[in-house]
Amino acid sequence: MSAYAVGHKVPDSDSICSAIALSYLKNATGEDVKPARLGELSPETLFILEKFGFEQPELKMTFADTDGIYVVDHSDRIQGPDDIDDTTVLGIIDHHKLGDITTSTPLECWIRPVGCTNTIIKMMYDFHSVEIPKDIAGAMMCAILSDTVIFKSPTCTTADIKCVEALAEIAGIEDYKALGMEMFKVKSAVEGTPIRDLVLRDFKDFNMHGKTVGIGQLEVIDLAVFNEMKEDFLADMAALKEEGGRHSVMLLLTDIMKEGSEVLVVSDNDDLTDKAYGKTAVNGKVWIDGIMSRKKQVVPPLQDSLA
Amino acid sequence: MSAYAVGHKVPDSDSICSAIALSYLKNATGEDVKPARLGELSPETLFILEKFGFEQPELKMTFADTDGIYVVDHSDRIQGPDDIDDTTVLGIIDHHKLGDITTSTPLECWIRPVGCTNTIIKMMYDFHSVEIPKDIAGAMMCAILSDTVIFKSPTCTTADIKCVEALAEIAGIEDYKALGMEMFKVKSAVEGTPIRDLVLRDFKDFNMHGKTVGIGQLEVIDLAVFNEMKEDFLADMAALKEEGGRHSVMLLLTDIMKEGSEVLVVSDNDDLTDKAYGKTAVNGKVWIDGIMSRKKQVVPPLQDSLA
Repeated sequence: MSAYAVGHKVPDSDSICSAIALSYLKNATGEDVKPARLGELSPETLFILEKFGFEQPELKMTFADTDGIYVVDHSDRIQGPDDIDDTTVLGIIDHHKLGDITTSTPLECWIRPVGCTNTIIKMMYDFHSVEIPKDIAGAMMCAILSDTVIFKSPTCTTADIKCVEALAEIAGIEDYKALGMEMFKVKSAVEGTPIRDLVLRDFKDFNMHGKTVGIGQLEVIDLAVFNEMKEDFLADMAALKEEGGRHSVMLLLTDIMKEGSEVLVVSDNDDLTDKAYGKTAVNGKVWIDGIMSRKKQVVPPLQDSLA
Repeated sequence: MSAYAVGHKVPDSDSICSAIALSYLKNATGEDVKPARLGELSPETLFILEKFGFEQPELKMTFADTDGIYVVDHSDRIQGPDDIDDTTVLGIIDHHKLGDITTSTPLECWIRPVGCTNTIIKMMYDFHSVEIPKDIAGAMMCAILSDTVIFKSPTCTTADIKCVEALAEIAGIEDYKALGMEMFKVKSAVEGTPIRDLVLRDFKDFNMHGKTVGIGQLEVIDLAVFNEMKEDFLADMAALKEEGGRHSVMLLLTDIMKEGSEVLVVSDNDDLTDKAYGKTAVNGKVWIDGIMSRKKQVVPPLQDSLA
């Protein structure tokens, strides 16, 4: 038996890279921990793993039969493995709001209001004075560039920027911004991908005062790639809302150069975006300037408006 | 407006000393944070404050009108201020199981499976390279000696021992074990104190699968001090159970020299201690050898047995 480090469902680059980086650190400090993933990987994450020579972590959906899990990149039961209530949570490393995971024994939590879980994992390496291998440093760095949208996201802190600079030096990467743009170009190549796959690519369910709200996000270099897709997105989101008994489904189409998002919405509340953001959606669509972060700009006002 | 650092209801030495130590650290790193307390202090805590020259923190029960709170020494809504749901939780520093506090925005959590919150706060000082003043080091050290029962509790880790040694040096205290014993002698002087005050002296309510369970603990050098009090304790616990609509009330009379506890119990379940600890209570009383820690030895099996 081993313990596992595992991120959220619909894993993104931060969930995967932090599971890999944390497992290495735990092994170095004498714990048997392996990385796992709760789903298929996005092209961006596959790009990072290939770039630095990593295999995909083991696809593993249940953990009750293990020595426990370190939860990375979230603290919400709904985002974790389905048998999380029967699994020992050994620790949580995260940078989001505090969710509803509880435990019956003391644990290890490193939660900080920074832009990326990997920034916190770097602090853990420093705390334990463990040297970060070159390949792991590269993967961690890419995860931070992804989560902070190359420092453009309002979630980005000076700690994230300093961390990227330190990791780039360890990984021997001179122009990390160029690598970040290469990564976002991979992310922007959406043509030919099934609509449902795109809606679910970076999709998270939230329990907001008893209502299930699913929020997806696609970050691209130019929103024009979605011109012919929006009605199909809305139709698929309506289906997804029904299938999951959800109160609302939102999809954020984020333009990382214009620094804003077109919000697509299907909801039981006709005035969902009015109440949460003071913006009226027309035919289920509304552009909101400056909105780039689901966790910092989209979730908190929505959660408050549904109270 | 300020933010506050505040521990649990029925504050113990760790809750108070960690609120003081965290506030100083936050001030040193540019945040306006003040210590507060949710109730009257025990003789042990008053002894520590007097010894190192501190005033009692402000008695303050509501925080919705503040800049937010740092929760120290717990993460349970039931143990926090009554208006915690209307208060911004900026962070949690704790060494217990993860409770049911949730937030709508990212926060700072330092939670570790160690013996005392102050051991974690020492890590925070080190992380920020802030020097600990002599008087604060002394108070932090006493809180760790209290929580770990001078290193005898099974919750005590090598991190706690190293931390006490470092703090003793900063505080200029040569024989910290003698100071610990002096503190436990203050704690053992229970004669003349009203029964209700003793039952509530270190009392915590837990929400265990929807059932409210209150557990008090009195740690003394010799259990003989309680010889004439046990029936009065049980009668008062029965009253407390009714008043609070509780499922169970337990009182742990812990002998720190013999390293075990006599458990007094009043419960809706006649076989509460059988199911949780494999020990039958006779007339509401049972001695359990080796039981010294509420959080590590008493709460987890009880919570599991009530699932």
